[in-house]
Amino acid sequence: MYDILKTISGPEDVKKLSMDQLHTLSNEMREALFNRLTKIGGHFGPNFGMVEAEIAMHYVFDSPNDKFVFDVSHQSYPHKMLTGRWQGYVEDEHFLEDSGYTNPNESEHDFFNVGHTSTSITLALGLAKARDLKGMYENVVAVIGDGSLSGGQALAGLNVAGEMHSNFIILVNDNEMAIAETHGGLYKSLQDLRISKGTSPNNIFKTFGLDYIYEENGNDIESMIAVFEKVKDIDHPIVVHMHTQKGKGYEMAEQNKEAWHWCLPFDRKTGLPTVDFGQGENYLTMTQNYILEKAKADPKFVVITPAMPGSIGLMPEQREQLKNQYVDTGISEEAAVSMASGVARNGGKPLVITNMTFIQRAYDQISQDVCINNNPVTMVMNFSSFDGLTDVTHLGIFGLSTFINIPNLVVLAPTCVEEYKTMLDWSVDQTDHPVLILIPGNEPVHRDVDTTYEDLKYRIEQQGEKVAILALGDFYQRGQELAQAIEENFGFQPTLIDPRFASNVDEDMLKRLETNHEIVITLEDGVLDGGFGEKISRFYGAKPMKVKNYGLQKVFYDRYDPAKLLEELGMTTPQIIEEIKQMI
Amino acid sequence: MYDILKTISGPEDVKKLSMDQLHTLSNEMREALFNRLTKIGGHFGPNFGMVEAEIAMHYVFDSPNDKFVFDVSHQSYPHKMLTGRWQGYVEDEHFLEDSGYTNPNESEHDFFNVGHTSTSITLALGLAKARDLKGMYENVVAVIGDGSLSGGQALAGLNVAGEMHSNFIILVNDNEMAIAETHGGLYKSLQDLRISKGTSPNNIFKTFGLDYIYEENGNDIESMIAVFEKVKDIDHPIVVHMHTQKGKGYEMAEQNKEAWHWCLPFDRKTGLPTVDFGQGENYLTMTQNYILEKAKADPKFVVITPAMPGSIGLMPEQREQLKNQYVDTGISEEAAVSMASGVARNGGKPLVITNMTFIQRAYDQISQDVCINNNPVTMVMNFSSFDGLTDVTHLGIFGLSTFINIPNLVVLAPTCVEEYKTMLDWSVDQTDHPVLILIPGNEPVHRDVDTTYEDLKYRIEQQGEKVAILALGDFYQRGQELAQAIEENFGFQPTLIDPRFASNVDEDMLKRLETNHEIVITLEDGVLDGGFGEKISRFYGAKPMKVKNYGLQKVFYDRYDPAKLLEELGMTTPQIIEEIKQMI
Repeated sequence: MYDILKTISGPEDVKKLSMDQLHTLSNEMREALFNRLTKIGGHFGPNFGMVEAEIAMHYVFDSPNDKFVFDVSHQSYPHKMLTGRWQGYVEDEHFLEDSGYTNPNESEHDFFNVGHTSTSITLALGLAKARDLKGMYENVVAVIGDGSLSGGQALAGLNVAGEMHSNFIILVNDNEMAIAETHGGLYKSLQDLRISKGTSPNNIFKTFGLDYIYEENGNDIESMIAVFEKVKDIDHPIVVHMHTQKGKGYEMAEQNKEAWHWCLPFDRKTGLPTVDFGQGENYLTMTQNYILEKAKADPKFVVITPAMPGSIGLMPEQREQLKNQYVDTGISEEAAVSMASGVARNGGKPLVITNMTFIQRAYDQISQDVCINNNPVTMVMNFSSFDGLTDVTHLGIFGLSTFINIPNLVVLAPTCVEEYKTMLDWSVDQTDHPVLILIPGNEPVHRDVDTTYEDLKYRIEQQGEKVAILALGDFYQRGQELAQAIEENFGFQPTLIDPRFASNVDEDMLKRLETNHEIVITLEDGVLDGGFGEKISRFYGAKPMKVKNYGLQKVFYDRYDPAKLLEELGMTTPQIIEEIKQMI
Repeated sequence: MYDILKTISGPEDVKKLSMDQLHTLSNEMREALFNRLTKIGGHFGPNFGMVEAEIAMHYVFDSPNDKFVFDVSHQSYPHKMLTGRWQGYVEDEHFLEDSGYTNPNESEHDFFNVGHTSTSITLALGLAKARDLKGMYENVVAVIGDGSLSGGQALAGLNVAGEMHSNFIILVNDNEMAIAETHGGLYKSLQDLRISKGTSPNNIFKTFGLDYIYEENGNDIESMIAVFEKVKDIDHPIVVHMHTQKGKGYEMAEQNKEAWHWCLPFDRKTGLPTVDFGQGENYLTMTQNYILEKAKADPKFVVITPAMPGSIGLMPEQREQLKNQYVDTGISEEAAVSMASGVARNGGKPLVITNMTFIQRAYDQISQDVCINNNPVTMVMNFSSFDGLTDVTHLGIFGLSTFINIPNLVVLAPTCVEEYKTMLDWSVDQTDHPVLILIPGNEPVHRDVDTTYEDLKYRIEQQGEKVAILALGDFYQRGQELAQAIEENFGFQPTLIDPRFASNVDEDMLKRLETNHEIVITLEDGVLDGGFGEKISRFYGAKPMKVKNYGLQKVFYDRYDPAKLLEELGMTTPQIIEEIKQMI
């Protein structure tokens, strides 16, 4: 089945193959992709489209002396198979050894852990600069495409590259797509270049001072070998603009490129996912419904996303329904946030959607453009919780400490369906604050809650004594569990608080707790450093109140098991009860 | 003297003037600029170059219904004079009422507080989007230039604008400069366009799908009126590329554009500053000397700056001396940081320099490209202290809470010359950590200090009892003062600690303090939320130790008096002594 692939322990084995064997290899690699992706899911379209180009790269260049940097690195699976990691694709028991992104811990052929977009050119420029300083001459190749080019950093990278005077190769994988359709004026230029086979004078790469070569047959091994041989050892920067087909080799993916950018485990015949999410309500559907209804009711409402409508599962037909009330800025969180500030300033009601891990790219725009100006932008972030995405480059656990310390920004941590819905309503219609809302990662639960938010106050859910539990957002249910365990273990009823506002300290309430409480416990599913709990510790610092903050460490966790991690950190209910025994 | 200018209470008064009067007005405005800038300093070159264009803008468009957004807004002084704020330029007692940046609190003609670069296009896109949603038709004009175009966000903005189908005008002020010389391939294209009077097919704006018009005479009122009349009420996005002379009207500034980008109070005849900084040592000269010597000694060392060599006063002749060991990425902090990560990965020794307020633009790149990969990049940040830049858009006080909570990043807060120099030495040569160093804002002082940093430990400077003071970075000297005051007031010697590592908690030392201390006091010149002190509060949260954190509030302070602010916050030594009396 994988006769040739299994002989590949590194690029040197690729170079030994005949053209026929390389073709067979490409078929085997697609089979291996199917094997992994049908069983555990992952990035589909980007990798199916890049098989031939990455074979050609390893055939022509000499990795790791020659150095490849893959943008986002979600299209590096073929490269990984060719650099001694085919087992992670063909042998089920080795799947989890392969991270799905480039990873220097896995292989000397990987130079960076990468998971955010538009960075490959500048990272590679750094490799090239160090090479020049050391007086070396290896090739440095930055791979970019699949929508990443519209990220400002990629364009800034082209600009910096335009001043280089040594070897630098930028491979632009033009598959006519981002995750969703591409957005922005530059993609018309790419189309011009494709239609003219690279001869159009309207050439964005040349306007940055870069040399340029076009290759139409990005899915043809011989063509790609020929073009790489042409540019290998070149003494100046050049863009290789190649045209590929995203999802090549699987008809459903070729037809519906957006749906097949990334896949869950699926049945190869039907294309249907083999995991069942049930039919019950979920927070993403709630968000979609809110958006569609709000847009219909209020013409000033607009959804803005940096190329991530999928973060809340907003499908093409829904986007079409939104018409001019939907803006995709391309992969530029900075543009999305800054534009939202302008919309709010001129009386519109902007809602920015993406994943928590990506919005930190707009840290400065949130601070300066939105919060200094105190413009009422609402940002709704998916995968904010610690049991969402667990790849080191996609963690949601830094969201709290990143954003709750920016003045004027109200960060809302809903604990149930009722809170989430009313927080959305309140946030989009009010004009006093910029707001960031964490989409809950828990299964939807229902509670009877207070739905006024103007006061920025915490809410007491259960008035008790001695111990007060401040249980934030997704950890509210753990707080409930802990409250019950305290009652069972110690025979008194503790106070349980839903802070709601991760960014604010309700000093009045904290003062009131002093009268009949000795211990305050905070629970949050973010890192403790710079997080919610530390604010509570500071408040009580010079007072007799004992405070214990439970949360995650300041660590780049990678592909962890959430339940195990909580236990390691001493955060299970029985573990906390033991600690309370010692404090009480 | 200011006969016409004094009649201008708003744009309606500009429109009444004849061409002759407009010319006289432009002369009066330059005189007014001289009046303010010779006395209190500010942005010189950008404003002297924009007088004519901004007169023409207000002559043709109808602000505030038509909306102008100025990039960085450091070139908006002429606009401010024409919108009822001429007193801030001609009457000394009104200088401080005018912020030097656009400011919605000052005038309905200003839409945003802006101070960071490359945001005008996206902010203005937001205004235009809200306009369209409301069914309105006003003109929206984004002004950009002076180097800001190389910022990724500006390029992403061009890309988003390329998809618009309604009125949008981008005025590109091409003065052939950034603060220093421009960098990047795109500036060659701008040169092509200037030389060809806009006819070159190598047109970066058109590659983003934008309509385009060139105007050579950016410093001529009639020409600019004509071009604005042509584009006013246009029904699609267009770039007006105008050529101006930076510093126009003052020969010294026309000749030496970099030095005259921004000025201190100066003598108009000689051009020399009228404030005296003394001849003693200072931290910027130390940094320059370190850079020049290190570069000579170590070919793998490279300085990378996002267009801010001036942040440490690195002059053109010094940059020339550094040759290929100096990289200016143009105004893109993202590119600079990400490139530095690549340099470090390939064995180089990168030092990134800029101001603290700007480096937060690369928050994501610091977290993902540098810290997840744990690449040994050194970042040296000027204006990190609370008595540096006090404009709301340029505050250094958020640096600590922004960066000390990122895993793997070591944030160093030196307290004296010896620490600063040895921290630089250690940081650049070690390969275990990414490091961010705060350049001290205090006058240089000398101390005998421990110069080993591998252990990431705090240092006890004075062993005492009962009260321990952790005095970070620039507040170390306040800690010394407080220690002395405690001895005088209470008759015992407290412990004084130089934490050195703002990002780390020295748990061993904190535990040792428990044996003979009751109170721990932390002092930091950053905001308390997410800052250094909160980590100490958390550590002692459930223990009997009383902790009091002193620092700034989570507030966007604007043009504050540092000494007054400290008093308001209860942070003077006598105020802290009073609080200790109550705790002890």
